Amino acid sequence: MSERDPEQTDRRAGRSGVSRRGLLVGAAALGGAGVGGVAGAGLARASAADVPAADAAGQRVVSPYGAHQAGIATPAQGFATLVAFDLVARTDRDALVRLMRIWSDDIGRLCAGRAGLSDTEPELAQVPAALTITLGYGPGLFTAARLESERPSWLAPLPPFGVDRLEDRWNGGDVLLQVCADDPTTVAHAVRLLTKEARTFTTVRWVQHGFRRAPGSTPPGTSMRNLMGQVDGTHTIADDEMDGLVWVGDRSAEWFGAQPAWLEGGTSLVVRRIAMNLDTWDELDAPAREDVIGRRLADGAPLTGGAEHDDVDLDAVGDNGLPVIGAYAHVRRARSDDPHQRFLRRPYSYDAAPTGGALSDSGLIFATYQADVTRQFTPIQQRLDELDLLNQWTTPVGSAVFAVPPGFEQGGWLGEPLLG
Amino acid sequence: MSERDPEQTDRRAGRSGVSRRGLLVGAAALGGAGVGGVAGAGLARASAADVPAADAAGQRVVSPYGAHQAGIATPAQGFATLVAFDLVARTDRDALVRLMRIWSDDIGRLCAGRAGLSDTEPELAQVPAALTITLGYGPGLFTAARLESERPSWLAPLPPFGVDRLEDRWNGGDVLLQVCADDPTTVAHAVRLLTKEARTFTTVRWVQHGFRRAPGSTPPGTSMRNLMGQVDGTHTIADDEMDGLVWVGDRSAEWFGAQPAWLEGGTSLVVRRIAMNLDTWDELDAPAREDVIGRRLADGAPLTGGAEHDDVDLDAVGDNGLPVIGAYAHVRRARSDDPHQRFLRRPYSYDAAPTGGALSDSGLIFATYQADVTRQFTPIQQRLDELDLLNQWTTPVGSAVFAVPPGFEQGGWLGEPLLG
Repeated sequence: MSERDPEQTDRRAGRSGVSRRGLLVGAAALGGAGVGGVAGAGLARASAADVPAADAAGQRVVSPYGAHQAGIATPAQGFATLVAFDLVARTDRDALVRLMRIWSDDIGRLCAGRAGLSDTEPELAQVPAALTITLGYGPGLFTAARLESERPSWLAPLPPFGVDRLEDRWNGGDVLLQVCADDPTTVAHAVRLLTKEARTFTTVRWVQHGFRRAPGSTPPGTSMRNLMGQVDGTHTIADDEMDGLVWVGDRSAEWFGAQPAWLEGGTSLVVRRIAMNLDTWDELDAPAREDVIGRRLADGAPLTGGAEHDDVDLDAVGDNGLPVIGAYAHVRRARSDDPHQRFLRRPYSYDAAPTGGALSDSGLIFATYQADVTRQFTPIQQRLDELDLLNQWTTPVGSAVFAVPPGFEQGGWLGEPLLG
Repeated sequence: MSERDPEQTDRRAGRSGVSRRGLLVGAAALGGAGVGGVAGAGLARASAADVPAADAAGQRVVSPYGAHQAGIATPAQGFATLVAFDLVARTDRDALVRLMRIWSDDIGRLCAGRAGLSDTEPELAQVPAALTITLGYGPGLFTAARLESERPSWLAPLPPFGVDRLEDRWNGGDVLLQVCADDPTTVAHAVRLLTKEARTFTTVRWVQHGFRRAPGSTPPGTSMRNLMGQVDGTHTIADDEMDGLVWVGDRSAEWFGAQPAWLEGGTSLVVRRIAMNLDTWDELDAPAREDVIGRRLADGAPLTGGAEHDDVDLDAVGDNGLPVIGAYAHVRRARSDDPHQRFLRRPYSYDAAPTGGALSDSGLIFATYQADVTRQFTPIQQRLDELDLLNQWTTPVGSAVFAVPPGFEQGGWLGEPLLG
């Protein structure tokens, strides 16, 4: 059945024709897709059924092009799948260039709501839903490409922390794709296509599925709540702080030291899989939970008053002379006196099928972006490891670090400054 | 930390007050919740942060009350988690009544966007997002309750089919909850709460997470596409056919024979986990895929013409004298000459983390509702088992059958006609 035979072709002549509108929409959807050239028997044929009015939420498009990759400064979409790949032994620098070209080309198509070049389910491509695809390189890629000298000094497994109970099945990876969209079918389709295109170069090391509130559930700009019920990700990076704190460039060089030239406009990604022990968390009442974090459950505002995005007053003292924010509180421990020890958090909840008699297997895919892992992320994690009441109910079970190349332009490809 | 100590209370006196609006909204959210009474140290305290304008999509409410359970005739929401429980040995009829009362009470609260009675994350309850919770009973419940004589004749594992490759980890269960909403965080929270409340009565047997397009991605009424790219679930049950084909009552008795009196207004649920072999499916081009199903990929219309919801003309012959819909086509095999051999399909896609070097682990949670499994579902499944080209790319890996009790009214409880 993998090739059409003449009998099928003939039988199909008995069908009523495809509507003219369907053909026109299909042609538009494939515009610029070119013809053939990628292996695979699938014929990427566009279809009209899922092409809704331009104002449907699923038609929202985020450009993949520019100085920086999309999916980092992009407001977090509702769904994320992170896939870490291991490179197979024969994948050298030339092979990586081929993979990067294929991926970059199809990232451009998919993010525009068009079928990938070797897409065998083009119908699923027609709801871009703010799709972004973000690429990262693990330490092993630099070995495979014989470019060890270009590896950023911080690109290595994080130092071990006392709270860690890491499982190898959630650790590491040579290449990383973070695929985010406001629709889970869009994410699943993009992941499948990109994974398939990489099959001769890689094997899948791990896959993590994450979610937030569905788009439209809550008003735009509402912070997510994690599955402990907390408002999560309030303290983030302002637009005018992205250069330096997130994007590698002159400001980051001034603050943290020079990095390899190819990484300019890029950043780093730390992915920590943090399991929540909801069974013991349930034993805490609401005031105790607020004290653990230092924020109100109701609205995420600091216990020292104000609204969610107001500063926490770490010096505030109650009528009894004791600090309002306890020494062990998460907001106190997560904050350094050094204003450069901050990073962009882009977390997602996970809720996997429980095993071994457990009630649930829930937690947080804690994804952070920063210009320099060693100078920004690690010191904060060390502070939290030493003293953070929240550690009693959370356990890191996976950890990975990636270098995130800068963005690319249409016709170019991701990773070109390193591999080209 | 599970009890508040005086020091904490004092320290909190130093905080600025909770806003008056926050208190009022919180009170409204808890309206009618009553006080205490359920074990657990958690204090269900409402909060205001996630309470958006009433027109936000997340505020949509589906009533859990009525002659039939919600979540069946309800248009399928974006997300579903199905949880199958095994009863522990000590769970007898009295214990089941207690569990049903607890669950029914909290189903009423959760579906209204209010915190459950023992809810330790009340903040997560405030986005109902069209939440429905649907309850089913497996064969083992009737044994545990010593009500074997009330067990419907069809409530047993399905007969084995040649295509089956069932794995015990996806089979069976004594009690089933189907939790659906237009928001994955809402689903995760409801599942966690209801699972926790059942912990002294049950263990978790399996959990299946499913999704469709996110709400708003495509225009209302758009049929879902499964991960093979096909429009799925087109042929369904009209509103005026629900009595008889889905709901047990006089019409179903006339067509299929009498059923236990307690099941009037109820139905049955078959859950089949169907793995898709996307790697071999990828080898088919689009025309071949259309011939396998008998529908156009573009819009799900029959290959014999018309639009998605038009009838398939199984007698249509092409110019070459051959049938347009092949003898092996899924639409032909899935259709019986007996108009009662139909059922309500409410499928969801799944996309799990692949293992063992696979590229993906995707498929369909094929959930169907029908008045009589033996008379409606099984014959169709036998037809498909004998001859259905689609079998080459799909494999049932899990199977379970449940009796679905009728609905309940506020103040009553689910299962009362059987267990009361």
